Amino acid sequence: MSPATRPTTHRRLHLNAFLMNAGHHDAAWRHPRTQPERVTDLRYFQQLAQTAERGRLDSIFFADGLALWGKVRHNALGGFEPLTLLSALATVTEHIGLIATVSTTFNEPFHTARKFASLDHISGGRAGWNIVTSGTVNEARNFGQDQHLEHRLRYERAREFVEVVTKLWDSWEDDAILLDRERGVYADTDRVREIGHRGAYFGVQGPLNVPRSPQGHPLLVQAGSSEDGREFAAEYAEAVFTAQQTLADAQSFYKDLKSRLAQHGRSEEDLKVLPGICPVIGSTEAEARALDHELTELQVPEYGLAQLSGMLGTDLTGLPLDGPLPELPEERDINGNKSRFTLVAELARRDGLTLRQLIARLGGGRGHRVVVGTPEQIADQLQEWFTQGAADGFNIMPPHLPGGLEDFVDHVVPVLQRRGLFRTEYTGRTLREHYGLPRPANRLTATASGTTGAA
Amino acid sequence: MSPATRPTTHRRLHLNAFLMNAGHHDAAWRHPRTQPERVTDLRYFQQLAQTAERGRLDSIFFADGLALWGKVRHNALGGFEPLTLLSALATVTEHIGLIATVSTTFNEPFHTARKFASLDHISGGRAGWNIVTSGTVNEARNFGQDQHLEHRLRYERAREFVEVVTKLWDSWEDDAILLDRERGVYADTDRVREIGHRGAYFGVQGPLNVPRSPQGHPLLVQAGSSEDGREFAAEYAEAVFTAQQTLADAQSFYKDLKSRLAQHGRSEEDLKVLPGICPVIGSTEAEARALDHELTELQVPEYGLAQLSGMLGTDLTGLPLDGPLPELPEERDINGNKSRFTLVAELARRDGLTLRQLIARLGGGRGHRVVVGTPEQIADQLQEWFTQGAADGFNIMPPHLPGGLEDFVDHVVPVLQRRGLFRTEYTGRTLREHYGLPRPANRLTATASGTTGAA
Ligand SMILES: Cc1cc2nc3c(=O)[nH]c(=O)nc-3n(C[C@H](O)[C@H](O)[C@H](O)COP(=O)(O)O)c2cc1C
Ligand SMILES: Cc1cc2nc3c(=O)[nH]c(=O)nc-3n(C[C@H](O)[C@H](O)[C@H](O)COP(=O)(O)O)c2cc1C
Repeated sequence: MSPATRPTTHRRLHLNAFLMNAGHHDAAWRHPRTQPERVTDLRYFQQLAQTAERGRLDSIFFADGLALWGKVRHNALGGFEPLTLLSALATVTEHIGLIATVSTTFNEPFHTARKFASLDHISGGRAGWNIVTSGTVNEARNFGQDQHLEHRLRYERAREFVEVVTKLWDSWEDDAILLDRERGVYADTDRVREIGHRGAYFGVQGPLNVPRSPQGHPLLVQAGSSEDGREFAAEYAEAVFTAQQTLADAQSFYKDLKSRLAQHGRSEEDLKVLPGICPVIGSTEAEARALDHELTELQVPEYGLAQLSGMLGTDLTGLPLDGPLPELPEERDINGNKSRFTLVAELARRDGLTLRQLIARLGGGRGHRVVVGTPEQIADQLQEWFTQGAADGFNIMPPHLPGGLEDFVDHVVPVLQRRGLFRTEYTGRTLREHYGLPRPANRLTATASGTTGAA
Repeated sequence: MSPATRPTTHRRLHLNAFLMNAGHHDAAWRHPRTQPERVTDLRYFQQLAQTAERGRLDSIFFADGLALWGKVRHNALGGFEPLTLLSALATVTEHIGLIATVSTTFNEPFHTARKFASLDHISGGRAGWNIVTSGTVNEARNFGQDQHLEHRLRYERAREFVEVVTKLWDSWEDDAILLDRERGVYADTDRVREIGHRGAYFGVQGPLNVPRSPQGHPLLVQAGSSEDGREFAAEYAEAVFTAQQTLADAQSFYKDLKSRLAQHGRSEEDLKVLPGICPVIGSTEAEARALDHELTELQVPEYGLAQLSGMLGTDLTGLPLDGPLPELPEERDINGNKSRFTLVAELARRDGLTLRQLIARLGGGRGHRVVVGTPEQIADQLQEWFTQGAADGFNIMPPHLPGGLEDFVDHVVPVLQRRGLFRTEYTGRTLREHYGLPRPANRLTATASGTTGAA
């Protein structure tokens, strides 16, 4: 590739590979191109991570839930805990970022800070944390609670949780380890601080028992899109995953989120917006459509109905598949994923879908945008959103794995590279460097030495 | 080696490598043979794991605490969270078992079950859990508590914790995954069960969101030696780490623990007793003694005093190093590590040690037995304890790393192999197979089908 086609001055997009079981389509595991027998086989995920790295993607990402649903009857669910898995993937990759989901509702900040700091050391600065508040009562029931904590309180807890975790990450100064064998002084304990946190949800004395990690703070990722979710993101998140169906919606989300940053003393570059996209790729448009159709044909309606019931907070079992949706609650009455509820309800309303049609539409991306086409067509869509103020990059959700990721890396990435929209080589070593985000200063040091005015 | 020297019928001993920072000696990090700058370097631990595997050891093990002590001023403390680390070690080893410490006092059974099940899948059946109740108020302070839960209650919580975890591991039958693409049935949900646990400490609905793992249950290891600790071990543990100073004490502990098994319907073979030993190895006895002396000379007295204060539940700061110990409390008043308190107090009393002498004696093994000598002499000691009813194997605690482990593997292991006491090749693939322990039946299935009388 000639230098002329690789401009280095303009904005580049960011790509995250969202890896899941046999793929994102709910019928993927039934498709002959998938390998559902390998969803508890480490080699499977190592190969996926290596494929993503071959494509020079910024990161890979694993979602997480803390309960198993009855839906496992009809889908290849149930797999690895993400942090344990990512640690094993760190050893077979060199550059790609490793983002794990951990819920602030059912964990303790000390453990969470420590595990991410460990992964950041293990991976040489490639750890990222997708901060979620968890959306279902099934999860609460695995942690001694009959009710799920209220949406607003979950975000309140999440705020305090992140405050504690970042303080723990800062509890060692970068140069606290002196390693003075002669004098017998390993660490300068004046540079290792207790955090003495006492709040509404947590009491954590500190310091952390892991030295400050390569990135200082592992990358903070978030994916809530409700009002509370956006406020949280504006304050803490450095990358945001979001489900958006139309360019207009994505633009308005993008603009809204970016406009909230200033009030937290942050600039627009400090947060990257990554809408999800499920690319159904064919070498011709007809081939892509055929694949999409094939996957839809493999859907198990009971599965789709159960998933839809969860998303809409409404039991749909027994309703005629070819009929319309029943009356739905309001977003304010949803204690799960509020923004997804609204997205799905609007999608059904807007396009006048029957239950069966809605299930088909949600099959590939559970509400994320599905784009069916050739590599060029998919690249066009990404380029449009990227250049039209709707995205800083994308959360790539292959409908089937490993093939859907391979197709993306081998056929879509080169188009983006040719257009100068995507890196052809890694230029950084850490996840922060890939996303163009700075290594955070140590807030505790700053406070102690009075050099910044951070309140 | 001729077949005659490799009898396969008699008892073989088991060896676990207890890996820690720059080594177990508290001055190891100051010794020129160690690499304290690498305690947050994954490659360092990968090499240690590979060395242990080269020696055909049964397992490697990482201890864990949930707080950092001021002692980091004088020792290379603060490193990786063990499960995150072991997952990254699983990928560069093939046979060796991987034992991580997780506290039942500051964790949730759902997370713990899941992480170990994940590691067991990732490693192909090599995960083990060292179940601890945590011994210090510093740890409680990182989890919102000002007081440390009382010793007896910690074990009560540990019991319920292990019950829940093992039920979660059994919540999927081994053959629950049907993977019937044709019919669209991934898992037989009749073979994936809720556990519906509601107890004094935990409420966990289940099922786990990870299929049953290669070992069924990751190996259960424990290291408490108080009365409550022994009762707990007799009921649940399959391998027990213990600190014993004399053959007589080790024999009495061994006999006592084995005698408690029958009342839980278990046989003596179901639990392996592994006393700790810190081998200070030299090619001559004089060389070994010189190394021991060298390490003692490198000790920082403040560090030893702080550690001793913790073990004895008594603040010793300011006391003359060359004077005797002050009046000590009784074991019943110790809310930390009861058995270690008694061991150390007795050691000092028995040998009439000054504080400085006691600190020197505890330098290598913190109360574990230190054996100084040639490879033959060390093998003799292991053989004696193994054949005289004091041990089923040993927890090897190299005073310095990586050299102390290499010396053990290269010089002591071959002696044990020549004597027919230790394997020359791995014969199994899983940690359970190395320790000669069966894969547990699924208790939930048994109960459901009424085929066993398990109460
Ligand atoms: C791409 C993406 C990935 C997500 N991954 C998870 C996840 O792994 N676990 C989870 O509990 N929620 C996950 N969520 C849900 C969000 O964290 C959040 O709970 C949800 O968007 C609802 O937030 P809201 O109520 O603020 O809209 C994800 C959302 C998106 C868009
Ligand atoms: C070899 C060995 C390793 C241990 N590792 C840990 C550990 O990693 N974390 C911990 O909190 N306690 C650890 N302990 C302490 C024991 O788990 C237990 O708390 C201690 O022996 C006190 O139990 P007791 O009061 O029943 O005697 C260890 C003990 C031994 C002998």
